[in-house]
Amino acid sequence: MSAESRPATPTRPRERSPFVTVAVVGCGLIGASFARASQLAPGVERVTTTDRSAHVRQRARHLGIGTTVVDDVTIAVADADLVVLAIPLDAIPGVAAQILPCMKTQAILTDTGSLKLRSTAEVEALLGSFHVRSGVAVRYIGGHPMAGSERSGIDAADGTIFQGATWLLTPTAGSDDDAFHALATHLRTIGARVLALTPEGHDRLVAVASHLPQLLSSTLMDEAADVARTAGDAVLAITGGGFRDVTRLAGSDPDLWVGIVSGNERAVLAAIDAFAARLGDLRRAIAGQQWDELRRFLERARAARSGLPSKAQVTSVTDVVVPLADRPGMLAEVTTALGAAGVNIEDLSMRHASDGTRGALLVSVASGAAASRAREILAERAIPCHLEAHG
Amino acid sequence: MSAESRPATPTRPRERSPFVTVAVVGCGLIGASFARASQLAPGVERVTTTDRSAHVRQRARHLGIGTTVVDDVTIAVADADLVVLAIPLDAIPGVAAQILPCMKTQAILTDTGSLKLRSTAEVEALLGSFHVRSGVAVRYIGGHPMAGSERSGIDAADGTIFQGATWLLTPTAGSDDDAFHALATHLRTIGARVLALTPEGHDRLVAVASHLPQLLSSTLMDEAADVARTAGDAVLAITGGGFRDVTRLAGSDPDLWVGIVSGNERAVLAAIDAFAARLGDLRRAIAGQQWDELRRFLERARAARSGLPSKAQVTSVTDVVVPLADRPGMLAEVTTALGAAGVNIEDLSMRHASDGTRGALLVSVASGAAASRAREILAERAIPCHLEAHG
Repeated sequence: MSAESRPATPTRPRERSPFVTVAVVGCGLIGASFARASQLAPGVERVTTTDRSAHVRQRARHLGIGTTVVDDVTIAVADADLVVLAIPLDAIPGVAAQILPCMKTQAILTDTGSLKLRSTAEVEALLGSFHVRSGVAVRYIGGHPMAGSERSGIDAADGTIFQGATWLLTPTAGSDDDAFHALATHLRTIGARVLALTPEGHDRLVAVASHLPQLLSSTLMDEAADVARTAGDAVLAITGGGFRDVTRLAGSDPDLWVGIVSGNERAVLAAIDAFAARLGDLRRAIAGQQWDELRRFLERARAARSGLPSKAQVTSVTDVVVPLADRPGMLAEVTTALGAAGVNIEDLSMRHASDGTRGALLVSVASGAAASRAREILAERAIPCHLEAHG
Repeated sequence: MSAESRPATPTRPRERSPFVTVAVVGCGLIGASFARASQLAPGVERVTTTDRSAHVRQRARHLGIGTTVVDDVTIAVADADLVVLAIPLDAIPGVAAQILPCMKTQAILTDTGSLKLRSTAEVEALLGSFHVRSGVAVRYIGGHPMAGSERSGIDAADGTIFQGATWLLTPTAGSDDDAFHALATHLRTIGARVLALTPEGHDRLVAVASHLPQLLSSTLMDEAADVARTAGDAVLAITGGGFRDVTRLAGSDPDLWVGIVSGNERAVLAAIDAFAARLGDLRRAIAGQQWDELRRFLERARAARSGLPSKAQVTSVTDVVVPLADRPGMLAEVTTALGAAGVNIEDLSMRHASDGTRGALLVSVASGAAASRAREILAERAIPCHLEAHG
């Protein structure tokens, strides 16, 4: 070993981004951090940023967020291989409609919206009719980075927040495989771990993992405050760390949450119903003094909780290798079929054949059991594959 | 000011404990910490400790927990002015029955159990029949310190954990005023803030402030784990800090919680029902797209959450001064009447008249409005009082 210091060996060779030019629309925390990270991605030569606020654009120039900061969004996107809309959810269709005529053909559009079902349908409809009218094909893959910070806004921009974070992508049956692969590759170059879900599956899962906890936290706080009004503040004086943990989310911004809940109404209602049914089961066990059942319930929840951190960090994976026939929509077909069957895709990559043909799709799953299940599901659809295990 | 260092000035003059000898039965975290703190209380000359475990008694001797460590619980309590049972809830009536014949007449018995309704009724029944048989009166006031530590057991003993902590006392209509006052005074000498509640009120409030949050946390974790089983582990990969906060309690010890829930079944069921009804209201607002109502709900919960820390730390109080007629049970009558009307008692103390008569009871409440309400309630019961405000 040489005397020179050398960086920690990455587990796989650092990939190059397939994008030379990237445009970021919206320079809040996520957009500005993404611009920062993309400026450092191997292969990227130019990152153009813009924001509807002149003040934010001025801060972007001052802080060097992007290689170029432009005032006009249609100019920002004109030569971009990848356009990222890091703007509020309800602004996405409008801005997409505005920039579409200015984008390059075959350019890739994505967004960072926290809900996917409605906006994906709206953007795909826009793109479809634009394609029919103009003949220009822009390829859209919805996204949702699971990254953030206590702080918000451009001054909190940090190119490292995506390192190790999960970036959800939500391809549909109409999504372009190559676009998905290119976007996933770029996201890996900025350190993110890509997970594919259907837009519907995404919204259902965030309802359980994020929206339901928010509503439970607010409901408990409201209930305790009501008890305090009628029975004295003693209830608040006796709250301990557990109560504070559970009610911490109740301090969130109401306007933000009205927007989220109203945009995911159906999945939120389903999550509330499933929770209420489970709480009803628990209530019946307590009322029936079925203490063994209560113990089993609490033990099951404790086991699930203790598995929480490690589940998010998969240490060994099996690749399901799917040779890519020249069949459009293959990637979406594979990911959607596996997602519908409950097989969680840990990572996706493409193996290019040495003769320049498309090669194979590598679908990484967390366990040998998931891999076997994936093989069965693909076999049912007459999609050939084989398994390759990693340490 | 002299060059000598002097301690921070306390807001009220340091009181002396009315107890010369204190016995602590059970040397877990709470018992051992209480013994440590009581050894330093002005006026206390001897703290005798014991534990059913020979190993724990050995540790108590090694660590100096108590001035004397004895093997036999009946010997431990023999000369004590105050006996504290810091033992598991279900052991309290049995140990109380065992030590009663050995306690001094007029000695005070308390406990640190986390539930009060059942154990208080059991202990009071024991004391009543013992008094009838023997003529020896032991006075019982139930207690529940809201203090703890991440660690447990005698080796975690820390005499400072009660500083600023709330110590709930649960007098009943049969409780002795002087015993309550003496116990409250001792608790203040170890830094605790005393709050009086009825045993029933106590159990109802801990159901909302502690038991319900535990069950909600476990239920959410169980629900998410179930979704992960059917829809893939992605739901766990996308959980953020909010989900982790809400589900932290799900990692608690199942056996401990089966004991707590089964001992407070009725109040826990009522808390679940109230929560489920509130969640049902919220569900109806979402299903009816009543977004203004959802916003009001979230705003109300946020306001209550932001008031949480300050509510537990009252900065200005008004004393309701009740001259004590020589009428037994006056203190319990006052505290129970105020508690039932939702007036929260922040502190209680006794003002002794210079002529040696009983003087007055000072009931501290948090606001002028609460004080006015207290005066009305006492007037309805023909109990005279006046108000004294503090800064």
